[in-house]
Amino acid sequence: MKDLSSRKHASAWLRIDLGALAANYNIFKTLALPGCKVAGVIKADGYGLGVDQVFAALETQSCPFYFLATLDEALHIRRLTKKPVAVLGGLYKGAEDIYCHENILPVLNSLEDISNWQKKASTLGIKLPALLHFDTGMNRLGLDAQEAQTLCRDPARISGLDILYLISHFSCADEKNHPATKVQYDKFVKISSFFPAVKKSLANSSGSFRAKEYHFDLLRPGMALYGLNPVPEQENPMKPVVRLDTRILQIRSVIKNETVGYGETYRFDKNTRLATVALGYADGFLRSLGNSTNDRKAVLYYNGIACPVVGRVSMDAVTLDIGHLDPCPVAGETMEVIGAHQTADDLATAAGTIGYEILTSLGSRYFREYC
Amino acid sequence: MKDLSSRKHASAWLRIDLGALAANYNIFKTLALPGCKVAGVIKADGYGLGVDQVFAALETQSCPFYFLATLDEALHIRRLTKKPVAVLGGLYKGAEDIYCHENILPVLNSLEDISNWQKKASTLGIKLPALLHFDTGMNRLGLDAQEAQTLCRDPARISGLDILYLISHFSCADEKNHPATKVQYDKFVKISSFFPAVKKSLANSSGSFRAKEYHFDLLRPGMALYGLNPVPEQENPMKPVVRLDTRILQIRSVIKNETVGYGETYRFDKNTRLATVALGYADGFLRSLGNSTNDRKAVLYYNGIACPVVGRVSMDAVTLDIGHLDPCPVAGETMEVIGAHQTADDLATAAGTIGYEILTSLGSRYFREYC
Repeated sequence: MKDLSSRKHASAWLRIDLGALAANYNIFKTLALPGCKVAGVIKADGYGLGVDQVFAALETQSCPFYFLATLDEALHIRRLTKKPVAVLGGLYKGAEDIYCHENILPVLNSLEDISNWQKKASTLGIKLPALLHFDTGMNRLGLDAQEAQTLCRDPARISGLDILYLISHFSCADEKNHPATKVQYDKFVKISSFFPAVKKSLANSSGSFRAKEYHFDLLRPGMALYGLNPVPEQENPMKPVVRLDTRILQIRSVIKNETVGYGETYRFDKNTRLATVALGYADGFLRSLGNSTNDRKAVLYYNGIACPVVGRVSMDAVTLDIGHLDPCPVAGETMEVIGAHQTADDLATAAGTIGYEILTSLGSRYFREYC
Repeated sequence: MKDLSSRKHASAWLRIDLGALAANYNIFKTLALPGCKVAGVIKADGYGLGVDQVFAALETQSCPFYFLATLDEALHIRRLTKKPVAVLGGLYKGAEDIYCHENILPVLNSLEDISNWQKKASTLGIKLPALLHFDTGMNRLGLDAQEAQTLCRDPARISGLDILYLISHFSCADEKNHPATKVQYDKFVKISSFFPAVKKSLANSSGSFRAKEYHFDLLRPGMALYGLNPVPEQENPMKPVVRLDTRILQIRSVIKNETVGYGETYRFDKNTRLATVALGYADGFLRSLGNSTNDRKAVLYYNGIACPVVGRVSMDAVTLDIGHLDPCPVAGETMEVIGAHQTADDLATAAGTIGYEILTSLGSRYFREYC
């Protein structure tokens, strides 16, 4: 629908600051130990911000390596660059040919993955590149302890492969001093010792900030590139990337004891005024941001003043208590969803989730502007 | 990315049964009182299922009228049909020209909307068509009681307009015998009596099933077209429209006292096996479907057997306890997210939300098949 959309007639506006994104990438380049490179994790459509634009912004900073979640995503990026493109979701049986043909790097997550990729290398009579993922506690993807042991005892299993990086992934690096992070690091060091000649990569956004010893040869920042806070216990060192504003569709008066929204979950204890704005859960304004009487948490901002969400979030609309605003806004004006007064992380807290989900849920109805 | 995606190499598959959608539309045609037409509510990209395909399916059933939420959405549909297309979000000041030029029907939600549209009609020296929305309890959009009274006393305010329908919207029709529904109906009847010559529309999906007296001249089904249950207290009268399956990326063994996922929220009380599947909150598998120890609610199905989600939902992956499956599945096989064993409504219940949000959150990474 993009061709028919216009700035003037949009219902809500999403502004994405690619300059800030590039600056955030450079924060990692500055942070990284000498010799340590910085990859860009641009999966899930660049964390919901538009992978083409995100990729272009990182290219201006000479980002040397890209991580995607799925083969489809990697194929898309492969059309745009000849640089290394890796698939975190791994290599499933039957996909060897296309990885090979398109020069996509599989992240090998199991002995079976290794064996399948090794067979392919053997058939072609060449060494095939890959990343090798050891699980150190996430229990999601990667070789488990037993598989790691098997491999360490018999490195010939990867003799036909050119392992670019050994990798693992932190589960709790966002929490300062979480004991799991050190445990994972120690496991990773132990496994790594069996592959002294191979480069290593461990740190995600948070991990990169937690300790220099986690840096190894490649940082893999994701969330922080997009302006989310990798060190939540302190002020966000990243620049904000996202701004979201929505149009006020209507201002209305409500009377004490009236209710608002589906299910009549919110009942007013006094006369007030409401603003109905043009975004809803279909736009990624999560339904969990809605509420019942005396349980209001989420807010939007009007000229810097917080206005509480009241009642349930609809598919295409949200209602806000604006009884305290003087002068009262008029229909057609805008309110801030994410911006100077409220970060994606703040909105996530109100929704009981994390900033990542706020970003990846951003809908397709916004008028998107990149600057 | 669609051009590079293939059925074979996809991570997850979304199948949308347009025949079932057409059949659901016909359930409303059969249900409707004689003379009552049935519109299609296809806002929010056809409730997330793809508005072009949804529109085409409804066209095969000669759907006479379409409702959208925003002007952008309406402009898109206007390119596809000359039939009436109405914007529920209303007419904001400054948009009169484009509504007029593109023959989009505004839903007039306030005296101000009426005045702006009336002025436009006066300038052009023609009658302009519109819908007129009276709020009867939602307190979201529509003329409030006082505005309604003003208008009823002075019908000349709409003398320059061709009001195709008076409309209102139920807030609680999904709950059987909810008192608000009758209250809203009574208010609507009272207001309608001032406009005896104008057609009326009140019933959404649930309202259409609740009482024939709610039918008036136009039903406006949305959710039920897409297979959600409009009468949750009884068996779903609609045909299922959505099927979603995802690929198993890896099978892994875990040992008692190990944890899984971010934040180590889930700790195993015995040895078991996990399947990691290729979808996450970036795909609309809401993060609220994740869990902590002893709090597991959400499930996926493997060959009809429920497998509980364990730990947090990641952006691109979910982990499931499959210790009870015998034989154990292998990587590359699929699991059912929505289908024969679990409806979108079921998944919504596990996430603490409604089926609507499950549908509108369906992501763009799925390989989408329409049948």
